[in-house]
Amino acid sequence: MNIVVQKFGGTSVRNLECQRQVMQKVLRPYREGNKVIVVLSAMAGETNRLLGLAKEWSDNPDPAELDSMVSTGEQVSCALFAMLLKQQGVKARSVLGFQAPVETDCAFGKARIVNIDEKKLECLLNEHDVLVVAGFQGCDEQLRITTLGRGGSDTSAVALAAAIKADVCEIYTDVPGVFTTDPNMCSDARKIDRIAYDEMLEMASMGAKVLQIRSVEFAKKYNVTVHVRSTFSDELGTIVTQEDESMESVLVSGIAYDKDQARITLVSVTDTPGVSAQIFSPLADKRILVDMIVQNPSKDGKTDMTFTVPRADVDQTIRTLEELKYEIGFEELNSNLNVSKVSIIGVGMRNHSGVAARAFQSLADENINILMISTSEIKVTCLIDDKYTELAVRTLHNAFHLDGGEPLETL
Amino acid sequence: MNIVVQKFGGTSVRNLECQRQVMQKVLRPYREGNKVIVVLSAMAGETNRLLGLAKEWSDNPDPAELDSMVSTGEQVSCALFAMLLKQQGVKARSVLGFQAPVETDCAFGKARIVNIDEKKLECLLNEHDVLVVAGFQGCDEQLRITTLGRGGSDTSAVALAAAIKADVCEIYTDVPGVFTTDPNMCSDARKIDRIAYDEMLEMASMGAKVLQIRSVEFAKKYNVTVHVRSTFSDELGTIVTQEDESMESVLVSGIAYDKDQARITLVSVTDTPGVSAQIFSPLADKRILVDMIVQNPSKDGKTDMTFTVPRADVDQTIRTLEELKYEIGFEELNSNLNVSKVSIIGVGMRNHSGVAARAFQSLADENINILMISTSEIKVTCLIDDKYTELAVRTLHNAFHLDGGEPLETL
Repeated sequence: MNIVVQKFGGTSVRNLECQRQVMQKVLRPYREGNKVIVVLSAMAGETNRLLGLAKEWSDNPDPAELDSMVSTGEQVSCALFAMLLKQQGVKARSVLGFQAPVETDCAFGKARIVNIDEKKLECLLNEHDVLVVAGFQGCDEQLRITTLGRGGSDTSAVALAAAIKADVCEIYTDVPGVFTTDPNMCSDARKIDRIAYDEMLEMASMGAKVLQIRSVEFAKKYNVTVHVRSTFSDELGTIVTQEDESMESVLVSGIAYDKDQARITLVSVTDTPGVSAQIFSPLADKRILVDMIVQNPSKDGKTDMTFTVPRADVDQTIRTLEELKYEIGFEELNSNLNVSKVSIIGVGMRNHSGVAARAFQSLADENINILMISTSEIKVTCLIDDKYTELAVRTLHNAFHLDGGEPLETL
Repeated sequence: MNIVVQKFGGTSVRNLECQRQVMQKVLRPYREGNKVIVVLSAMAGETNRLLGLAKEWSDNPDPAELDSMVSTGEQVSCALFAMLLKQQGVKARSVLGFQAPVETDCAFGKARIVNIDEKKLECLLNEHDVLVVAGFQGCDEQLRITTLGRGGSDTSAVALAAAIKADVCEIYTDVPGVFTTDPNMCSDARKIDRIAYDEMLEMASMGAKVLQIRSVEFAKKYNVTVHVRSTFSDELGTIVTQEDESMESVLVSGIAYDKDQARITLVSVTDTPGVSAQIFSPLADKRILVDMIVQNPSKDGKTDMTFTVPRADVDQTIRTLEELKYEIGFEELNSNLNVSKVSIIGVGMRNHSGVAARAFQSLADENINILMISTSEIKVTCLIDDKYTELAVRTLHNAFHLDGGEPLETL
């Protein structure tokens, strides 16, 4: 049987009218003879309402209880949506995390999917034409309810598509697809038709928040074709899939940015073996995500260590490191909150040199000073003063002809 | 191990302050070294909110989806309460219907408990000192969530107490216990210390809505001692238990009434064998609860058939019977909405004659006309004009000295 997985977020199911629109999306593949697995989030606002209640009850709510409570959001939206479908005469039912079952580890609040019983799912699909599956939730071995963390519904959808070998996993969102960059920042931004998993991972992690990053990892691992598209139109969106030759012929697929960054510099660190671990292990323990790291060449046994952290974690980062000042052995800690990251991303740059140089040159032409640089196989990231973010994005977008003009295939 | 089961309704858990009070009730047996199973309802208003949502979505919501949705009310209140307990350092956790598991049939919306796995419960009790169990819900063989119908949390509590052989099942409510009659109607009403299951069944079914009737049936069947008591004080309430000699020495234990009644009369019914079935089977099919039935002696092959139904079902009753007018063969259908039932209840009347006569006489002394009479072993019910309900209740309460004066042991 042909199976289509569709995922709709909280905004799409927030009230009866929206759910009726979603139903039309579901009925299309259904009427074409496909079985449909619909993955839903909680109605917009509901998860926050529940988290608010928990916070009123306890400063530090038990994570297992919190999951049991928060999971009711999807439980309600799925039941309501299944009611709508049944009223239309569709053989449908809701399926909760423990019913599918979506087995996870027991890391409440950020559980990872361990297994999805495709046999059980197949049975359910034999008896029903549409399954309305609660996203974001699963259950551990003890049948306790777990949740996958914010945005986990994307991961649920991709994992279900992988388990049942669906033809496609459609992720419906409020934008028409993945863009070459943020259209709010650059009016020339263009929808990308096809993008490789790795490119999408870089785009997502850099703040192009169309798809949850873990869901892309999952899609890549199980080779699930993901179609990111708009709830509000029938136009095709962006296909996220395996890298192919046509993708490699494009040097740069998109420009991502992240304004939520801060730079920390430890001045005159005593450069002994293991000092990096001494600095970064305590931060990792506190789950602070350190991103770009630059170590200056050592001079007289001293070096400067510069790195970026999310802006929200700056205070904790400073507190943590100041406490270890003598242990680590640095003289001074400087921080700069007014920085942002701008990246060019593309699998095509693997086989082409000169991409980074062109990026640096185009920024230089606009007098944008680059504070730090980091590169990977398919990405070049520059840290800049955040007041230049928009200018930098537009400049790079233009420099790599992402507005849909002549594609820049060679340098 | 000694196990205490406690059940708290929606009003008792409606906000943080109330849940803190409930916690004190739970901590008492806990500190005395007992294991405690706390059964909770949804926070007051939540179930209605959810039902309202469902009604907005569908005129006739799918019952299975409705159960999955409505059950979230208890899921939230239990998670919150478990958070409170854990914050106090109590080894506690919430347990949902499918986790216990409370196995039911699949009659969604009015499921019956089939089995409770006491082995699983024992395991949970070995690992935790307090289990916070979601009332009102269970799951069927397919792991679909079911609910037990309104007031089902009482049944959950008693069923859990039966399964785990708890020492007592405490049902906390907003009144101090079971009264000889409705204190709002009769200021002389007195709290009953001990009452037999059968008496309680008659009291409950007649509208003395302290305990859900099915929970009493359950308690009787499994011989669970139920203690109905107040959330707002530490005073003892009413023990509902097996009949004993002391109970039999009291002729009448209480006066119940039900104003929600209507009388239907079919005039000149052709009195052939099977006519009763012809009348009452279609009503039963529509789940209309026919209560008192009186058939006049037949005359010329014709009889009048009079019975009572809940007032809300009158329209449907009339519609159903009018459609079958020629099939059944009656001339006229009369209805009277202004009637109520008043009953005297007591296991003691089994061994004493004259109780009914005294009741009739005392009503007659007040010029209250009796429209219909029905009697059982432990109950005498009179249908009267509903404007006399209060007067009748007070008169009977007085006639049988229920105000706590000299007990009336012989006639």
